[in-house]
This record gives sequence, structure tokens and C-alpha cells, in this order.
Amino acid sequence: MTTNSLPSPRILMGPGPSSVTPRVLEALGRAPIGYLDPELFTMLDGLRANLRTVYGTSNEWTFPLTGTGMAGMESCLSNLLEPGDKVVIGVIGFFGARMVELARRLGAEVTVVEGEWGGVLDPDEMAKAIQQSGKLKLVGCVHAETSTGVHQPLKHIASMAHEQGALFLADAVTSLGGISVDIDNNEVDVAYSGTQKCVGAPPGLSPVTVSENAFQIVRNRKSRQSHWFFDWNLLQNYYDTPHMYHHTVPVNMLFALNEALLEIVDEGLEERFKRHRDVSAFMLSGLEELGIHPFVKAEHRLPTLNTVVIPESVVDEAAVRARLLQEFGVEIGGGLGALKGKIWRIGTMGASATLRNVLTLLGALKRVLSE
Amino acid sequence: MTTNSLPSPRILMGPGPSSVTPRVLEALGRAPIGYLDPELFTMLDGLRANLRTVYGTSNEWTFPLTGTGMAGMESCLSNLLEPGDKVVIGVIGFFGARMVELARRLGAEVTVVEGEWGGVLDPDEMAKAIQQSGKLKLVGCVHAETSTGVHQPLKHIASMAHEQGALFLADAVTSLGGISVDIDNNEVDVAYSGTQKCVGAPPGLSPVTVSENAFQIVRNRKSRQSHWFFDWNLLQNYYDTPHMYHHTVPVNMLFALNEALLEIVDEGLEERFKRHRDVSAFMLSGLEELGIHPFVKAEHRLPTLNTVVIPESVVDEAAVRARLLQEFGVEIGGGLGALKGKIWRIGTMGASATLRNVLTLLGALKRVLSE
Repeated sequence: MTTNSLPSPRILMGPGPSSVTPRVLEALGRAPIGYLDPELFTMLDGLRANLRTVYGTSNEWTFPLTGTGMAGMESCLSNLLEPGDKVVIGVIGFFGARMVELARRLGAEVTVVEGEWGGVLDPDEMAKAIQQSGKLKLVGCVHAETSTGVHQPLKHIASMAHEQGALFLADAVTSLGGISVDIDNNEVDVAYSGTQKCVGAPPGLSPVTVSENAFQIVRNRKSRQSHWFFDWNLLQNYYDTPHMYHHTVPVNMLFALNEALLEIVDEGLEERFKRHRDVSAFMLSGLEELGIHPFVKAEHRLPTLNTVVIPESVVDEAAVRARLLQEFGVEIGGGLGALKGKIWRIGTMGASATLRNVLTLLGALKRVLSE
Repeated sequence: MTTNSLPSPRILMGPGPSSVTPRVLEALGRAPIGYLDPELFTMLDGLRANLRTVYGTSNEWTFPLTGTGMAGMESCLSNLLEPGDKVVIGVIGFFGARMVELARRLGAEVTVVEGEWGGVLDPDEMAKAIQQSGKLKLVGCVHAETSTGVHQPLKHIASMAHEQGALFLADAVTSLGGISVDIDNNEVDVAYSGTQKCVGAPPGLSPVTVSENAFQIVRNRKSRQSHWFFDWNLLQNYYDTPHMYHHTVPVNMLFALNEALLEIVDEGLEERFKRHRDVSAFMLSGLEELGIHPFVKAEHRLPTLNTVVIPESVVDEAAVRARLLQEFGVEIGGGLGALKGKIWRIGTMGASATLRNVLTLLGALKRVLSE
């Protein structure tokens, strides 16, 4: 794009951002209002109520953090953890590894339970690490691992964490709005997500939800957290009464998220989850016809972020993706970390999850691979 | 606003966000592209070049941080400071005090030089604190104190910092795009700003600029910074080659900032500064006619954020502001901290800085005060 030209129209089927509907883009582009405008707090109350619905929680402290999903991760860890705290983190991909990195930067003692990239965590290994940890503060893992396309069950790990007196943290970046997250039934204490995957808004906010029990532990910290911008005590004083100034919230992004959540409510959660499953299944069967197979076993697959093994016949996979983007305006993602060059990551998330987009992708891929 | 209704049209003359032009809103509402799309990096190169122009710097590491101005403050401090580092911060308002708070959370030893709210820093007191500090890492202050409306000169303090071998950090949140910041000529090593004041975009990004010397010091840190999301080493690997994934940047906000900077270039920096001065002068003279006087001496006044003393005849100042908002759609700000109830803060920033807006405000205020 030259400085004055418009961005090309893209079908965003990478690992995020996903495409956004005209309805949400219209909301995004509305003239802003002030961060203390009473209309903003009325909107935020509705936004937060809808966020609770999508998260499946009654947690009062559910709010849109300024920043992206990674800011959400850092906000959760920096509020919950104090130096020396013991933490167990399950790692079956790139984002689990990031959780470890961030927790260690905060001075936590992290025990890592590694599993194969492409599979789920071994419950026995998690149990062993959790039970041998002594006084444990937190157990964390990724619900929908964006780097592998794996859907990690949460409830069993959450129960084990609670038996040990620890909190349970889940990364819901690639699940929220696309599959059931069900915070309360899964006994998740704290979770964060992003707006640009299955929620249907552009990137820039991280929906966070925190149980009262977890927030109480944050309120009773011995040390003051190093992180000011992400400090929940200060943020709560802004989002709830007395609505004290903390930072100038990104009003337009909030307009967009509010509209995206209304769209989800209009569609219906179960209908939306079904759409994600249907579109993913349609795509995988079309890819099979092209000789492209899923990377993940059927029972562990996410319908939101599909990973497929790059066929051996493909010499330069980056060139294939570049042609899809340049010739057809379709974006798909490459592998991260150890999976770079081995898999493609194809998102069917939010407004990108349509049969029409899948047809375009399949047709484009067929043509590029055949030449 | 009920959940489905549109936000009311506001004239934003508070301390930010300011109003945004249709041109920038149109850019904001464009369909997003991916965070690794080659078009995005082409746009970002132009955006960053224009940001350097507005900042008055040749600093390579000039970039739009994801987050607001306060995130910019935390990003600068968390990259620059290590536990035990000695810092001198000049405080003549709410935002200087925040700089102290954030630096202390990072474990720095902070010497505070306090000045009267409404005045500038005493150069002799700053000199004393800087010279007596021993091995000093950083001197910081606020260029345009949003809480008082004071324009703090920078160059003399920067020189003193450098003589002591320290870096100089300036908060340019309420100055960038409205008055000259002139990073290089003022010998500022590091500065941060916001997009929602004089730059002309909505809130959600923080333009940051860092000298090569300052970045070198960050690269040579002994301890790893606790802050991951704000880590310049990681961010540079994304914004510059090899364009490695760090977080999903808020693409739409970047569209808006890019357009706002193009608007500034089209208007011309000097023309834009003159507009801010002219509109502010026009407003202050109109307010004088209503018996409302400036809080700050003429020589220290910002033309971007005007503070005025609330007349004694006003019994309930918050009610006046509420009426301006509800009956005329005009937002102005109240005082922060010690100045709460004593001053109004009236922004003439970015697209809000027009003679027409001033006329509306003056007329509305005259009517509300006369009833």
C-alpha cells in the first residue's frame, strides 16, 4: 500500500485477525465520545453483560482490557503472581511456552509440563506436577492452542488445581465466541481472550474474566505489582463506580466490540458454534480432496483454527501463501516455532467462517498447487 | 446509550479524546488486513516516517505502541529502568506524579522535585537534585501537563541530565501534533505520546520515540524486564525485519493513525501549531468576556489544553459540565487531584480545535451560567 492508497480487500483465514462484518466496521468508525461520558458506561455495562454470556460466567469482574490477547495474558499473570510463587503450566504449543516466559519474567517458579505439539496435555503428568508442587499458586494452560489447532479440555485440570488450593488460568484467545468456553462449568478462575479471532471485532482489546475468589487473592497481594497499566484494582475503579480515570480507554474499539457481541447474541451462541463446526468440516473435506490432511487427530481438533500438514510436493510453502494473498486476496498462516514449514494454519473464525470463503480458498489453493 | 442505539454526537473539548475528522474515521473503519501482510509494513514505514516528522526526530526506533499514552509511559520506564536505578522526576501535576508511581513500582530509587501545580519546574531545584544524585540513570518530566495546562520547557533539563550522564524522558501526550516537540533539538532521548489528543486519531495507540543511545542502554540491561508486552527488543523484531510475530497489532487503529498523520502532513506542522494557538487565544478571550480567567500565567500556557479558574459564582461545577454535555453535546473536563472543583480543563486539540467549536462552547457556557 502506498501511503495514500486503500488496503486491499482480504479474506482473512490466517490465525487472526479475522474478517469483520460491515456492521462492526460501521460501529468502529463512529465519532468517539469521552472516556467519562455517561453513555459510555451505559454501553460498557451492556458490553460486559454480553461478554459474561459469551464466556459462560457470572464473574462480575469481566471486562475489555486495553491491549491484545497477549496483553490479556500479561495482565492475568502480573496481577495473580508475586515473585517466588509456584506455578504449573502445561505446554503443548507456542502460546503455552509464552505463558511460561511471561510468568518467569514476573519471578515465578514455573514447573513446565510439556506435551507433544499437536496433542493435548497428559492428565497424569499434569496431576504429578500439580501434586508434587507443594504450595501452588496457579495452574495454567491454553484452551485453544493457536499454534497447533488443538482443543485442550479444561475441567479436569481445573479440578486438580483446586484440590491443590491453586487457581486455574486458561488462555481462551482462539476459543471465545467460536466454541464453548463455559468458564463457570469448567471451573476456570481466570481467562483472557482477544477480539480479533472468533469474537468478530478488530484486534486491540482483550476480554478478561476473573472469579471473585481470584480477585480477592489479587487484592490481598503482599507485594505491589510491577505492572500499572494492567492493574485490576485500578481498572476496576474505572469500569465500576466511582469511574475514576485510569487511562483513556479506546472508545472506538469498544464501540466495535460492543457491536460484535450484539452480533453474537443475535446469531445465538449455539448457532454460532455450529457454524464454526460446519464451516471447518466443509473445509477439511475439501482439503482432503486436494490431498491435504489435518495435522491434529479428529477428537482434539479445533473448528476455529485448522492445522493441516503441508504436502510433500510443495517445495516452497511461503510462496504458496504469498500467491494466495497476492492473486486471490486470501490470507492463511504458516507454522510457528517447531512447526514452521510443516503445517499451514487456516482460520475459520468469526465473520471469516463462511462457506463462501472456504470455496474461494479451496479454489485458489487448487489452482496455485496445480501450477 | 441503550445497547442498540448510536452514540450521541459530541464536541470533545475535554482533556481527550478529541474529536476525529471523517477522513480518519473512514480509515479506521476499513476492512482489516493481517499483521504480517506486506501492505501493512509498507503502510507502517510511511506512518513511522511521518511520526518522526511530527516528533522532530531522526530516531529510527519511532513506532506506534499498542496501548494508550499511559502504556507509553510504562513502556518507556519498564524498558529503561532496572531495580535500584536512580531517577529524578519533576512533578508539577498529576501526570508527573504518575511517572513517579510507575518508576517506583519498577524498583527505581526516585528523587521527586515538586513544583507548584500551575507553574513550571524550578531549574535550580532540578539542577540540585540532578547534581546531587550520584550515578543517575534517568531524568523525566512532562512536556505538556494535562492536569494543569502548563507548557514545560525541556532543553535546559535535558542538558543537565546529559551532563550527569543520564537519559532524559519527556511525556509528550498533550503536545505531539499541537505544539512543537522537537525531540532532537531539545535533546530528548525518549518520549511517548497518545493519538487521541492533538494527533487527531482515536485513543488506543501511543507513539514512542527512542534515541539510538537510549535503545543501546536497553539492549545492554543486566536484568530482564518484567514487562513483556512493552518490550522494545521484541517489538523491534516485529516492526523492523525480520517482522517476527510479537502480538496481533491493532490494524484498524494503525489505519486511523496513518491517516491522521497524513492529515497533519497535508495541513503542515507550522500551520497546525498556529491553528492551535489561534483557536486557544480566541477561546480565552471569549471566556474573559464571561468573567472566566486562565489558571496559568500567559508565558507557561499550553494552547492545546486550556485550564481556567471556575468562577466563585458557580455552586456546582459538575452540574455545569453535565448540562453542557446533555444540552449541547459539548464535553469539557474537570480538575484532577488537588485541582478538582477548582479548574476546568478545556481542550482545543486536533480536529476539536476549530473556531466553530469555540463559538458553540462559549454560547453554551454563557447560557448555562446565566440560568
